[in-house]
Amino acid sequence: MCTDKSDKPREECGIAGIWGAPEASNLVYLMLYGLQHRGQEGCGIVSWDSGTFHSIRGRGLVADVFDQHNLVELKGAAAIGHVRYSTTGSSALKNAQPLAVEYCRGNLAVSHNGNLVNAEEIRHELEAYGSIFQTTIDTEVLIHLIARSTKKNFLDAVVSSLEKIKGAYSLLLMTNDEMIAVRDPQGFRPLALGKLKDAYVVASETCAFDLIGAEYIRDVEPGEMVVVDKNGLRSLRFAPAVEQQALCVFENIYFSRPDSLIFGTSCWKARQSLGRILAQETKVEADVVIPVPDSGVCAAIGFSQESGIPFDMGLIRNHYVGRTFIEPSQSIRDFGVKLKFNIVKDIVAGKRVIVVDDSLVRGTTSRKIVKMIRQAGAKEIHMRLSSPPVAYPCFYGMDFPTRQELIAATHSLEEIATYLRVDSVAYLSLEGMLAAMPDQKQNFCQACFTGNYPVDFQKRAAKSGMCVSTKEIEGDRITNL
Amino acid sequence: MCTDKSDKPREECGIAGIWGAPEASNLVYLMLYGLQHRGQEGCGIVSWDSGTFHSIRGRGLVADVFDQHNLVELKGAAAIGHVRYSTTGSSALKNAQPLAVEYCRGNLAVSHNGNLVNAEEIRHELEAYGSIFQTTIDTEVLIHLIARSTKKNFLDAVVSSLEKIKGAYSLLLMTNDEMIAVRDPQGFRPLALGKLKDAYVVASETCAFDLIGAEYIRDVEPGEMVVVDKNGLRSLRFAPAVEQQALCVFENIYFSRPDSLIFGTSCWKARQSLGRILAQETKVEADVVIPVPDSGVCAAIGFSQESGIPFDMGLIRNHYVGRTFIEPSQSIRDFGVKLKFNIVKDIVAGKRVIVVDDSLVRGTTSRKIVKMIRQAGAKEIHMRLSSPPVAYPCFYGMDFPTRQELIAATHSLEEIATYLRVDSVAYLSLEGMLAAMPDQKQNFCQACFTGNYPVDFQKRAAKSGMCVSTKEIEGDRITNL
Amino acid sequence: MCTDKSDKPREECGIAGIWGAPEASNLVYLMLYGLQHRGQEGCGIVSWDSGTFHSIRGRGLVADVFDQHNLVELKGAAAIGHVRYSTTGSSALKNAQPLAVEYCRGNLAVSHNGNLVNAEEIRHELEAYGSIFQTTIDTEVLIHLIARSTKKNFLDAVVSSLEKIKGAYSLLLMTNDEMIAVRDPQGFRPLALGKLKDAYVVASETCAFDLIGAEYIRDVEPGEMVVVDKNGLRSLRFAPAVEQQALCVFENIYFSRPDSLIFGTSCWKARQSLGRILAQETKVEADVVIPVPDSGVCAAIGFSQESGIPFDMGLIRNHYVGRTFIEPSQSIRDFGVKLKFNIVKDIVAGKRVIVVDDSLVRGTTSRKIVKMIRQAGAKEIHMRLSSPPVAYPCFYGMDFPTRQELIAATHSLEEIATYLRVDSVAYLSLEGMLAAMPDQKQNFCQACFTGNYPVDFQKRAAKSGMCVSTKEIEGDRITNL
Amino acid sequence: MCTDKSDKPREECGIAGIWGAPEASNLVYLMLYGLQHRGQEGCGIVSWDSGTFHSIRGRGLVADVFDQHNLVELKGAAAIGHVRYSTTGSSALKNAQPLAVEYCRGNLAVSHNGNLVNAEEIRHELEAYGSIFQTTIDTEVLIHLIARSTKKNFLDAVVSSLEKIKGAYSLLLMTNDEMIAVRDPQGFRPLALGKLKDAYVVASETCAFDLIGAEYIRDVEPGEMVVVDKNGLRSLRFAPAVEQQALCVFENIYFSRPDSLIFGTSCWKARQSLGRILAQETKVEADVVIPVPDSGVCAAIGFSQESGIPFDMGLIRNHYVGRTFIEPSQSIRDFGVKLKFNIVKDIVAGKRVIVVDDSLVRGTTSRKIVKMIRQAGAKEIHMRLSSPPVAYPCFYGMDFPTRQELIAATHSLEEIATYLRVDSVAYLSLEGMLAAMPDQKQNFCQACFTGNYPVDFQKRAAKSGMCVSTKEIEGDRITNL
Repeated sequence: MCTDKSDKPREECGIAGIWGAPEASNLVYLMLYGLQHRGQEGCGIVSWDSGTFHSIRGRGLVADVFDQHNLVELKGAAAIGHVRYSTTGSSALKNAQPLAVEYCRGNLAVSHNGNLVNAEEIRHELEAYGSIFQTTIDTEVLIHLIARSTKKNFLDAVVSSLEKIKGAYSLLLMTNDEMIAVRDPQGFRPLALGKLKDAYVVASETCAFDLIGAEYIRDVEPGEMVVVDKNGLRSLRFAPAVEQQALCVFENIYFSRPDSLIFGTSCWKARQSLGRILAQETKVEADVVIPVPDSGVCAAIGFSQESGIPFDMGLIRNHYVGRTFIEPSQSIRDFGVKLKFNIVKDIVAGKRVIVVDDSLVRGTTSRKIVKMIRQAGAKEIHMRLSSPPVAYPCFYGMDFPTRQELIAATHSLEEIATYLRVDSVAYLSLEGMLAAMPDQKQNFCQACFTGNYPVDFQKRAAKSGMCVSTKEIEGDRITNL
Repeated sequence: MCTDKSDKPREECGIAGIWGAPEASNLVYLMLYGLQHRGQEGCGIVSWDSGTFHSIRGRGLVADVFDQHNLVELKGAAAIGHVRYSTTGSSALKNAQPLAVEYCRGNLAVSHNGNLVNAEEIRHELEAYGSIFQTTIDTEVLIHLIARSTKKNFLDAVVSSLEKIKGAYSLLLMTNDEMIAVRDPQGFRPLALGKLKDAYVVASETCAFDLIGAEYIRDVEPGEMVVVDKNGLRSLRFAPAVEQQALCVFENIYFSRPDSLIFGTSCWKARQSLGRILAQETKVEADVVIPVPDSGVCAAIGFSQESGIPFDMGLIRNHYVGRTFIEPSQSIRDFGVKLKFNIVKDIVAGKRVIVVDDSLVRGTTSRKIVKMIRQAGAKEIHMRLSSPPVAYPCFYGMDFPTRQELIAATHSLEEIATYLRVDSVAYLSLEGMLAAMPDQKQNFCQACFTGNYPVDFQKRAAKSGMCVSTKEIEGDRITNL
Repeated sequence: MCTDKSDKPREECGIAGIWGAPEASNLVYLMLYGLQHRGQEGCGIVSWDSGTFHSIRGRGLVADVFDQHNLVELKGAAAIGHVRYSTTGSSALKNAQPLAVEYCRGNLAVSHNGNLVNAEEIRHELEAYGSIFQTTIDTEVLIHLIARSTKKNFLDAVVSSLEKIKGAYSLLLMTNDEMIAVRDPQGFRPLALGKLKDAYVVASETCAFDLIGAEYIRDVEPGEMVVVDKNGLRSLRFAPAVEQQALCVFENIYFSRPDSLIFGTSCWKARQSLGRILAQETKVEADVVIPVPDSGVCAAIGFSQESGIPFDMGLIRNHYVGRTFIEPSQSIRDFGVKLKFNIVKDIVAGKRVIVVDDSLVRGTTSRKIVKMIRQAGAKEIHMRLSSPPVAYPCFYGMDFPTRQELIAATHSLEEIATYLRVDSVAYLSLEGMLAAMPDQKQNFCQACFTGNYPVDFQKRAAKSGMCVSTKEIEGDRITNL
Repeated sequence: MCTDKSDKPREECGIAGIWGAPEASNLVYLMLYGLQHRGQEGCGIVSWDSGTFHSIRGRGLVADVFDQHNLVELKGAAAIGHVRYSTTGSSALKNAQPLAVEYCRGNLAVSHNGNLVNAEEIRHELEAYGSIFQTTIDTEVLIHLIARSTKKNFLDAVVSSLEKIKGAYSLLLMTNDEMIAVRDPQGFRPLALGKLKDAYVVASETCAFDLIGAEYIRDVEPGEMVVVDKNGLRSLRFAPAVEQQALCVFENIYFSRPDSLIFGTSCWKARQSLGRILAQETKVEADVVIPVPDSGVCAAIGFSQESGIPFDMGLIRNHYVGRTFIEPSQSIRDFGVKLKFNIVKDIVAGKRVIVVDDSLVRGTTSRKIVKMIRQAGAKEIHMRLSSPPVAYPCFYGMDFPTRQELIAATHSLEEIATYLRVDSVAYLSLEGMLAAMPDQKQNFCQACFTGNYPVDFQKRAAKSGMCVSTKEIEGDRITNL
């Protein structure tokens, strides 16, 4: 992959499931198509076929892993699926989801979106008692906890296991008897509940429902466990409602598709408001507003409408990219970004240009885009970001680089402008961001902007081998900036 | 494939080549990436390695056919490539381009964009004399003509062979000694000439040059033959300049990427003008202008700017689609179009919506899109097309359906509005279209709008087995409308 | 598969390992080549690379699964491997060996030849305590027992786990610190120990040693555990020497390659003696002795030498067969057997023919072979088997059909002759068989001939779902014959 | 490939065809199975389906190239097939047979066994007139000759084309109207004609007939052209019977399967006679006769019977070999031959051993085999070859090394014994060889033994680039020996 991976935050997954419909796996396949933007490195479906589980998982896109020959093997009237983003190293096939095991209680399959912050501690403890793990996925601890539970009743075993795990998780569990949708008490990740005729469907985003013609009912609530079986739907709580929820605000800023309802409200509306408020806060004289496609489009339109400066598509994105691989040994300058974006010269030549993007992580790609615009003859370039500065890593499922690599953690605004070689750069304020959210009663996790982590944890940092705790990171903030 | 294939015109190919650069095949590979929108069914590269030709061709996208392992086999300092669209039936691998043969004069490889209208006659004649064809591609007749030519000199043999073929062709030929770029006397298809350091590059569109950092020089002219060899570049004419050129206007309307120069002028500028003039000609009271992405975006922005009606992205296109295959046996309504497009309900609900698209062929997809917008709550829907009615098939390289299937050939404007279920539908006028072209001195082929075919032909229609000539089609126009 | 699977007993596996040699996986790969006759459905190698385990397993032959690209990934100075025969249904890739896990004690890989008779009981017990199994292989219980063991020391954990399992097992275990070779107390399956320069090697048969130039030292003894680590080789006993060993006599009759030493003595010598004693016991007037290749060749030569009747290769075996698949829908008579064997007509036409095979299981293939010989013009056909009648299923690793399908369990000698359509049929006697064994002090398992099972068990029969115990089978013997 | 390729002569192909049977391609597939020993590098089938040709060709064994999915695509009531051996460099897929073209006369498919000695001259001439060749196979000239022929009638065109080609060819041609079997006037390669119910079948060897239950009728005669069409079978002659036929004697010595009739007589009978006469001519005191399997088995049995010295299988051949590839970087001595053969020590230890093989080409493999036997403890080793010394290359389809590499061309008998490290080596005499042939009226090509080439030619030697003619080679014989 020759494009700069690290210039966008990346979330781990999307999940989808259905209980009680003929050709369930076909429907989950379509829903995964709609969730493909949440993970392109792998995907899988496990179907329930009157007591037998069928499973297909693989690396790559939904269209690469499934075809009409193997989909027919996924028989049955219930299925859960998963699309996955993964960091290098753990991309092995065995780490593909949904996880599925056959154990003392029969079959169990699990799809997980999020990140458990105490998975390693639990794993070490379970292994000390003789459990053998099959993968390196944090989700597997939940399965072993359930297998080890002495509770007779399966739902009791699930509840007691959920009580032991901490962090972000939207889950789908499937057994021979039911499908269970779970959302962590803070509600980090979204999880929507819908209906298709007599069947219940669950998915990370409602755009998956639109594709199959399912109707959105409501979100699974934080701390709620929705059980779907032959008797219909029941709602259980495995944890009381927390005072302060911690919905991931980046779902509205970047992750989700604008045509989805996220946490029950319109993602498009949130994103366009982010652009409008950004224009109010950071307006500058200019001739044209252009987005960095696709993620900057909504905010750029909002910016244009609020500011009255014309909108145009000055950057063309090549959608065939994404699976490119070669890095020509000869020096084609800024090769990676050119493969992904091309500039429409007539739009920017001789113009004062406002470039709207959703966020700035490392800044390396933005710098190259700016250079292209400059070479195409722009007179001025003003970078506008529809989110506050990202200055802290996320431990709840987003794949940000380490704090040292986050440009907003180590550089002042002036330094960032110099680095990007723009005439000005400006971020949306924290207040502005929250004001743009459609439902002002919702509480969002702001850890990546503020360093205040809603769920404590102690974790061995993957690469450094160092132990990192929330406390240390908060201290780090004081000394480093 | 579950999406309606026939609702967009489709061109046959894109071509690219380079002579005189190390790692030539890597550069052609990148250029093909930039031309991927011109053909997704197959691609190939032939490289020249000091007298040996290496060839890789396959079905699918550039990223599917090539990888870092096989690209290194394409050694050498020159290469030509091809991306291909093909109709069902002839998609066999043997029909992949570039064609490459070893014959009496040594090696010869050919990439072709366009359609020869007298290929079948020539083929039958050559076969009667004992030639054995390896493919069913029209381009192969050119190779056999060259092989059979009694001219001693290779360039003379090429010229005498070109004099025998009729129709649309932008060609790249490669031998052990030179690369030759050719454009037919009418200039139907584009072909641009550029330079990368000491090497000359040729491509269907200039966006391919941007990707590798090559500089655009000029177009290969209609009737011109540009020869690149160790001594540099020479221009020869194999045909005199025709009075009336016949540039394909659909390149500006739909095929080309907006960031390309086409026929030497900005495609984006043309496309936005189409939108502006469309607004002047067909304006209607409305709340929002939305494009059918991606091809309608430029014109929709132009329409919005001219009309003052706000632009928004009411339709989200799923770019992972295109290789989908399943047609769920259960009835998911309008399944195909839902997989490709989703609606952002908040943008259209309760609004009067103008939908801008580039053209209308069969109308089946547009009808489904309209239905989705209606279901999302639009109050009024007005369809606007940035081209005149397409009423005649193309025989020069575009893959339109037969005349009977073209909605504009068989329905009145009112009937079309009824079929689409819109409140109004309006096309751009022929004059408006021509006025939008950046260079008013250029002459465009308008056969698909008018039925006046610039190059006569007699051709056996592929499917019907009927013999069709330009004369008959012109007659047909009179009786049918 | 069109050939009659069930007409030969089939054993489950071959295993091989090496500790302390550069390119260990290459050497194991070669040894597996030499053991390929012990299992063709799957194979695998796990290598030890200074603390990291690399693993490749797949379906098919050694030459299908490994190539020069993937073998280099199996770095390191130690490796164990496995070739596998499997019954339909459990041939899933996940059931390929060597099994390898990462658990509380680090890495552990296991190759197993044999069959545990109490695996299911142990598995159910372990699952009840929360263990999650990854495969359906009986060997996995051993791994879980080791993981659950409370013994601090690894070797103690292995010993206490081995004490819980019953049945036939020749094992290779590999950890970060050592390779361990184990043979069950009865010594059912062979396991040979050798040396290659400074490295120790272990393999099911010595022919694997010949291939890599290793020197045979001795067999791993029943109840012995040979530990190889950086300090060299140690021998431990996990079980006392049993009074009555139970070496599998079919290793000498059919499974092993004639060029191997089996249980320390020459397999070829045993097999030729079987033929000689068979001739003494069952001689008949005839013109030619022909073997059913390849397994009947040694005994046929022995028969010929003892009887003075000329030996010839009247049946030609097509060695490209074995992966054939089609069953022509039109009736080609006795198609399967014709694909595998062809007759040399001149050898049998007008002759009295003695056909020597190693054993008779179902009799279906033999019947077809006899028919071919008859059609080629043989005057008389006398079938001679170099083993006693197989009348009882094996539960220690051979894949015989159920008792009901064993022709010798349900038919008298006359009935068998009638079924096979031979002029006479004769088996070797039990005493004759034992007399042919090179080492008269060895004790062999004779359960498949006598129904006296040396290790008791209670086992759920795979297909019928019925519970079968040794007691019942012994009873069954009485009522059925 | 790590085994010594050059120690056996290798022929180019086997061919098979059927006209007039349902599921024709299934039957050809089975016949190719039976001919697999004649070529393992590639294979193909073209079927005739009421005027449409279907074709599948690939690299590897019949079982690798065909499966139940692709075989069903080869519909129709007629088919021809091919198995192919090829020298490195020309193993490209495009060179796979049967060749199939669509040309002025419709469809034509050709399978060829043999080697044309004037193909290059004809090719250059055809190319000069503008023909474009698709492959580098000599057979393609025949197709172009037919395409260029001015004869109206197809059979006349075939005859006039055959009159232009020289060398060894057994051919199968298939058109929309007929299947034609052709054998060159000298009859170098075998070609048998058979019948299966109402259908006619043709194959290189009769063992292919046995597999499908077809009945052998007779051989296609040298200079004969057998035409099978809807009216049945016709025999035409395209050349008069030559006085001296030149049947390839190596078919009886090595190539063919012993269960085939070759040139109308029993291959087994010939091969055993070769062994018997070899014993008469070269007998020596010894304890055991062992063959080099599989090709030496028949002659060794004949030798044993004639000499009274016991026969045994002292060498075990590993039939899984043949697709091995790795050459371990560490030195495993005589690795290649060990992978293919293993010794049964008890058979040779302390014995005087006669080793019977069919021929000696380079001697490299034999030398390694001898070393293995010596290391296993043989007291004496006597090598016996059931053919005369091979001292001249073959230009009619056998793939011998150059004259310089043939051990018998450059070494005396004593030198060969020294090189092989045997106690004695002896060849069969030319007279003895001919006396062993079942039909004493047949005339065999003896060029590889005598250097008298029955068909003259002038040919550019593939590797040296030197021009070689029969004359020069004959001269070479005089000076070199």
